[in-house]
Amino acid sequence: MNIDLNSDLGESFGAWRMGDDAAMLAIVSSANVACGFHAGDPAGILATLRSAAAHGVSVGAHVAYPDLAGFGRRNMDLASADLQASVIYQIGALQGLAAAAGTRVRYVKPHGALYNFIAHDARQAADVIAAVKAVDASLGLVVLAGSALAGWAREAGLRTVEEAFADRGYRADGSLVPRNQPGAVLHDPDAIAERMLQLAREGTVTAVDGSVVRVHAQSICVHGDSPGAVAMAQRLRERLTAEGIAIRAFMDLA
Amino acid sequence: MNIDLNSDLGESFGAWRMGDDAAMLAIVSSANVACGFHAGDPAGILATLRSAAAHGVSVGAHVAYPDLAGFGRRNMDLASADLQASVIYQIGALQGLAAAAGTRVRYVKPHGALYNFIAHDARQAADVIAAVKAVDASLGLVVLAGSALAGWAREAGLRTVEEAFADRGYRADGSLVPRNQPGAVLHDPDAIAERMLQLAREGTVTAVDGSVVRVHAQSICVHGDSPGAVAMAQRLRERLTAEGIAIRAFMDLA
Amino acid sequence: MNIDLNSDLGESFGAWRMGDDAAMLAIVSSANVACGFHAGDPAGILATLRSAAAHGVSVGAHVAYPDLAGFGRRNMDLASADLQASVIYQIGALQGLAAAAGTRVRYVKPHGALYNFIAHDARQAADVIAAVKAVDASLGLVVLAGSALAGWAREAGLRTVEEAFADRGYRADGSLVPRNQPGAVLHDPDAIAERMLQLAREGTVTAVDGSVVRVHAQSICVHGDSPGAVAMAQRLRERLTAEGIAIRAFMDLA
Amino acid sequence: MNIDLNSDLGESFGAWRMGDDAAMLAIVSSANVACGFHAGDPAGILATLRSAAAHGVSVGAHVAYPDLAGFGRRNMDLASADLQASVIYQIGALQGLAAAAGTRVRYVKPHGALYNFIAHDARQAADVIAAVKAVDASLGLVVLAGSALAGWAREAGLRTVEEAFADRGYRADGSLVPRNQPGAVLHDPDAIAERMLQLAREGTVTAVDGSVVRVHAQSICVHGDSPGAVAMAQRLRERLTAEGIAIRAFMDLA
Repeated sequence: MNIDLNSDLGESFGAWRMGDDAAMLAIVSSANVACGFHAGDPAGILATLRSAAAHGVSVGAHVAYPDLAGFGRRNMDLASADLQASVIYQIGALQGLAAAAGTRVRYVKPHGALYNFIAHDARQAADVIAAVKAVDASLGLVVLAGSALAGWAREAGLRTVEEAFADRGYRADGSLVPRNQPGAVLHDPDAIAERMLQLAREGTVTAVDGSVVRVHAQSICVHGDSPGAVAMAQRLRERLTAEGIAIRAFMDLA
Repeated sequence: MNIDLNSDLGESFGAWRMGDDAAMLAIVSSANVACGFHAGDPAGILATLRSAAAHGVSVGAHVAYPDLAGFGRRNMDLASADLQASVIYQIGALQGLAAAAGTRVRYVKPHGALYNFIAHDARQAADVIAAVKAVDASLGLVVLAGSALAGWAREAGLRTVEEAFADRGYRADGSLVPRNQPGAVLHDPDAIAERMLQLAREGTVTAVDGSVVRVHAQSICVHGDSPGAVAMAQRLRERLTAEGIAIRAFMDLA
Repeated sequence: MNIDLNSDLGESFGAWRMGDDAAMLAIVSSANVACGFHAGDPAGILATLRSAAAHGVSVGAHVAYPDLAGFGRRNMDLASADLQASVIYQIGALQGLAAAAGTRVRYVKPHGALYNFIAHDARQAADVIAAVKAVDASLGLVVLAGSALAGWAREAGLRTVEEAFADRGYRADGSLVPRNQPGAVLHDPDAIAERMLQLAREGTVTAVDGSVVRVHAQSICVHGDSPGAVAMAQRLRERLTAEGIAIRAFMDLA
Repeated sequence: MNIDLNSDLGESFGAWRMGDDAAMLAIVSSANVACGFHAGDPAGILATLRSAAAHGVSVGAHVAYPDLAGFGRRNMDLASADLQASVIYQIGALQGLAAAAGTRVRYVKPHGALYNFIAHDARQAADVIAAVKAVDASLGLVVLAGSALAGWAREAGLRTVEEAFADRGYRADGSLVPRNQPGAVLHDPDAIAERMLQLAREGTVTAVDGSVVRVHAQSICVHGDSPGAVAMAQRLRERLTAEGIAIRAFMDLA
């Protein structure tokens, strides 16, 4: 049995630090690397890519709206021509830096507001799918498990990877508990590890109402933006591997 | 006999227009396309690349300092790590967009203050050379004819293309007349065509003091930022081809 | 009888030109000057402000979303703290430049997507109103005639100026014909002048369906982004003054 | 006896945190607040200004080159029109936010590369001086003690405040030990407090070669970018006040 662990990396910018990339690259199998639109400057991104290459971690382009001040977390109504070209631009920029780092971009994961919006918006979803295919149709696309986007991406012929969130609560319909509601975010590392073990083994998660819901995920997203988050990811990795579940990049699987 | 004509394109940004890319792509053999750091937004760059592909024009990455407000014309003291990664980032971004446009990036031409500075500054020149090699060592590098950079780039094993400027005056030592001195910029389309014909045939230019200086150039840079500039470039092309000199992209030559 | 003519100015950025500020400052009584978020760089804004001061034209802060690439025309979901502070920042920046130019900021006019969105969105409208009051409660606020914002701004105690658009068609309910529908934009300078004369005299406009609708406007917005637009604005000014209607800045009225 | 303590604040940006503004505002008498060009976003700057107002700390505009990616630490060759207008823009923006926070901007302190460059460059120094005077000639200007700028600013009639650096070594000529040389940065909080006590009492500092040099400073710059830096500043404040030296904003002195 295998599962992938992915995390958002390369999110420092200029004089500002964010996250502990070195620590996380020893834990995860896939690194979603910022491309400069919501975070990341060229030299910092390159350093993260070199470290990812050294750790043998699979690299993805963490594409976003052009909104550094908002960290890509604000909805933006980009026209199709702008959104498509912006996604292509970011993937290409990361491909260039990856080549310089001795690795290559294997997949794309939309970030923040773009991630959430295209999970259900057909127009912007189609733009992102078209952009990925225009650069390299063999790239994978990481999407929210069970989202409309998962279906659209598969229909478009993209290798589509559905992901679960280690520290997020789920509702009975398989959707995430919104952040402003009780149970949205989990904090106990052991409970989180246990949940994800169940996900990896049985493809299910226990929802906030106690029901067991099917969540079809090939990857688990973990955070590294605080010492606590890193420790939680480490605990999850240890628990999974102790139970015989290998942590492997989804793009390395047949 | 062959010579290349190159021009700076893709320099519009958002709501702001600059240059007549469509007209220039019918004249030149090589297009230096902005990469978003001094000019160009993703959708506009992509449109220019599609047009370049349709015209069979060779595409180069017009890399610059990160200075949109200054159009890349202000000296910036970037550390080596930043400069190298910034150049790689820009080349990669353009490669991604070029792939989407059905073409590819063949060469790199530094822009503005970066172009002028690395013509003689060994440290920043080494950074740009390293960046180009890190992405794709088969890329060409367009440099000021007779500059120190030409030698450094050749020593580093890059395919190095020296360029002359159609509308600029030269001094007896082969350098350009500075813009704040008489004779810096030429305006007569016929005289310019005649000069460049001499350059293509004999490898010489008549300097401001009347002396004939050797200028070893495989490409001529022409401008397209005004109707007069476009007409001047068109006149030059007609004169050269009428004299049996083919306009061919340097990267297409053996 | 008086009416104000206002226009968007200071919209060049770096190497990119937009509009003919010099021509428009001889026509209008109020200048909505870009503040650097959707357009305008400090030196260009300062030059426009000096020209406005020389022409005795009233100056307003043309505040916008932070979106240079999108020219402030794309909806952005800014949190209240961010929107309020961004509007304050822009007004302050323009006040500083206005002081250096020997004039001062008299009013605020939201731009583009922000203008359209707060015409009906209560939350962002409240943020903009709060921002204006936080800087200087004596500043005027220019709003779409008949919009919900007009009521909110008046209730908040702001000096509220409703504006009509010289070249836009109106519907029977007093709203603008959307740009993607027939009759949205008018092109005949004489017809436009005639319409605005009716507006100034009678407070009415003839809608696309032929009905006469009441439009309560103290200012008319004219464009200056093309030679045709400048000529149209000039024609309008001449027609109004020939009929004895003085062009006067609304902020100069009692 | 009085002396001022100043520190750089408001340097967070978007999702990125920097410094402990709350802690430092309980220590210093003057806050150099970022204006958005090298650091600081409008909402974050406003929050810092509100806190400064609550603590009764004097506020200055920490103006910089437009270089967020480089944190204003890279030399940039701005034309005079651009530099002047950029400084005015930043001061104005901070004045607007200060008004909203119930305080006002009392002085200007250039940041980073701009600070270092205009300490000795007459042209850019003249631009900054002209910009300050254009906005409000009663604003103070904080400069490197003993620099050429100190003389130029005084000649221009600006209230000029010379500052020393608590944790930097000095050479026998009164200049700072360059950062790449031994003795450039001091680390012992007690030794630093002792040095600054001597500075406050006697107007002298012991240089790296053991000689005693005159340093005429009305303000001491302290850092708050790490817990150690905050503790060092706190230690300095305690030592000075214990010895009867009041910490007072220079702009509050007659």
